[in-house]
Amino acid sequence: MKKYTIIVAGGSGRRMGTSLPKQFMLLKDKPVLYYTLKAFLSAYDDLQIILVLPLGYTDMGQEIIDAYFDKSRISITAGGDTRFQSVKNGLAMVQEESIVFVHDGVRCLVSKELIHRCYEKAVETGTAIPAVTSRDSIRLVNEAGNEAFERNNVKLIQTPQTFHSKILLPAYQIDFKDKFTDEATVVEAYGLKVSLVDGEENNIKITSPIDLLIAESIINAN
Amino acid sequence: MKKYTIIVAGGSGRRMGTSLPKQFMLLKDKPVLYYTLKAFLSAYDDLQIILVLPLGYTDMGQEIIDAYFDKSRISITAGGDTRFQSVKNGLAMVQEESIVFVHDGVRCLVSKELIHRCYEKAVETGTAIPAVTSRDSIRLVNEAGNEAFERNNVKLIQTPQTFHSKILLPAYQIDFKDKFTDEATVVEAYGLKVSLVDGEENNIKITSPIDLLIAESIINAN
Repeated sequence: MKKYTIIVAGGSGRRMGTSLPKQFMLLKDKPVLYYTLKAFLSAYDDLQIILVLPLGYTDMGQEIIDAYFDKSRISITAGGDTRFQSVKNGLAMVQEESIVFVHDGVRCLVSKELIHRCYEKAVETGTAIPAVTSRDSIRLVNEAGNEAFERNNVKLIQTPQTFHSKILLPAYQIDFKDKFTDEATVVEAYGLKVSLVDGEENNIKITSPIDLLIAESIINAN
Repeated sequence: MKKYTIIVAGGSGRRMGTSLPKQFMLLKDKPVLYYTLKAFLSAYDDLQIILVLPLGYTDMGQEIIDAYFDKSRISITAGGDTRFQSVKNGLAMVQEESIVFVHDGVRCLVSKELIHRCYEKAVETGTAIPAVTSRDSIRLVNEAGNEAFERNNVKLIQTPQTFHSKILLPAYQIDFKDKFTDEATVVEAYGLKVSLVDGEENNIKITSPIDLLIAESIINAN
């Protein structure tokens, strides 16, 4: 089936203590976004990327594409005020029945194996949400304080959150709610359940300067 | 108040795919355990360490102490089959009213600030369990599948789990149960609530070879 990846890189990176959005920061001499784009383009030959960038950064995105990639496989669109709106802007460019991956631009270490696993599960069940189990013990905070909770029943959610277009497109017609922290919560609010697939410990999000060093260690080790 | 740290390094490291327990692996030319011991010895001058090692590795532990530390501040004892038993063996060496830190030997990046924070909270409330919030969205697995859960109400638990000896010593007189995954669950089963304190993202556990590289990046960045 046809494949689209919406890469959400709408954040302007305030947490990094820098004015450059984190998806443009350098990791081993290439922008973080380079690795993310490369991972998806290499995973499938018939995959098209829709890159959602903050307003004012589309030129910078275009420079990365021009420098490293086949322009015909990547389109750029501007993001909105929320992740929901950014994904919705990207979805407007999905033009045919397809499997749609929605991926954080700063999760630049996503592997081909994980992308394939998500695709296969989404073809089978309509949805595929990568999840890992915490290595640490878990406690839930409640009104009475906190209590131990079975670690294996808590999943840390990653991207690419992957869906059949016939699910994701109508789901994004519903009105925005604050609880929409990712795509899975939108599909759930639309009334469907989501399927989990095994994520990857190395599929980290670059959100602080130390993460760039950690990502470099992981790349060097592979 | 007097301070003891029980460092639990009972595991034989099967997950590393190596015969050397992970607490002895080299991180920037020194064993992982060196950094853990150093962190606690530097945090307080009147702190005594009880190092719990797997049977057969006590000599290796003694070599690290002889090479780097003041022998009078560290005692070694052998671990048991479970973490519960290892901590219990360590507690047998706590000889006076004190604050007792129980710490994973492989969390070698624990900071002085975190150790102080745990101490102060344990003096105040009797218990201090370091916890961080997940950066990722959270889902809980249940009989019907899985569902989104408020990320801020889920805490990932670290060590040093810190207690007043008057709580921890009697708590460890109860019978072992499978659900005892850490010290907080033992104290809870004994009938008390535990207090959380802010943990640290860098306070990672060395459980796989890549973690050694990540730890090296973090040390180099500080």
